[in-house]
Amino acid sequence: MYVIIVYDIKVERIDKVRKFLKTYLEWIQNSVFEGEITKAEMRSIIKNLEKMIKKTEDSVLVYTLRDEKYLERKEIGIQKGNKSNIL
Amino acid sequence: MYVIIVYDIKVERIDKVRKFLKTYLEWIQNSVFEGEITKAEMRSIIKNLEKMIKKTEDSVLVYTLRDEKYLERKEIGIQKGNKSNIL
Repeated sequence: MYVIIVYDIKVERIDKVRKFLKTYLEWIQNSVFEGEITKAEMRSIIKNLEKMIKKTEDSVLVYTLRDEKYLERKEIGIQKGNKSNIL
Repeated sequence: MYVIIVYDIKVERIDKVRKFLKTYLEWIQNSVFEGEITKAEMRSIIKNLEKMIKKTEDSVLVYTLRDEKYLERKEIGIQKGNKSNIL
């Protein structure tokens, strides 16, 4: 399955969340990760995010698609996230 | 078509971009808008965003799907964006 994760997390928890997400996904924009994962990985990501964030202060959106082919992505402006400058 | 727009824009331009996007889409998270639009609206959104942002400093991701049915959305934590507290 293909996943897009967008987060709005307090600064004190961001590094931890980013380090975790980069083990599964690619960093696309400041607060966006994307990638192809298995269902088991998806469950693990959700479970860990639920532990890592503070549910009364942080917000995470997890979009899933069965297949990346349903999705088109257009980028305007600078490309912020890439493998070379992550953390 | 269904669209998800995620932006990372310098603070001095955010209000203008948000006010513009809310005329077409629903505010979902701090930097995320979503909604069903026509192809003509899509062209207008892209054209206007390209004028509004500073391409050397800001970044906007525009995800499009032919149909919302291909997409599943899960939210963890607080729901930040909604019609009642936008701007």
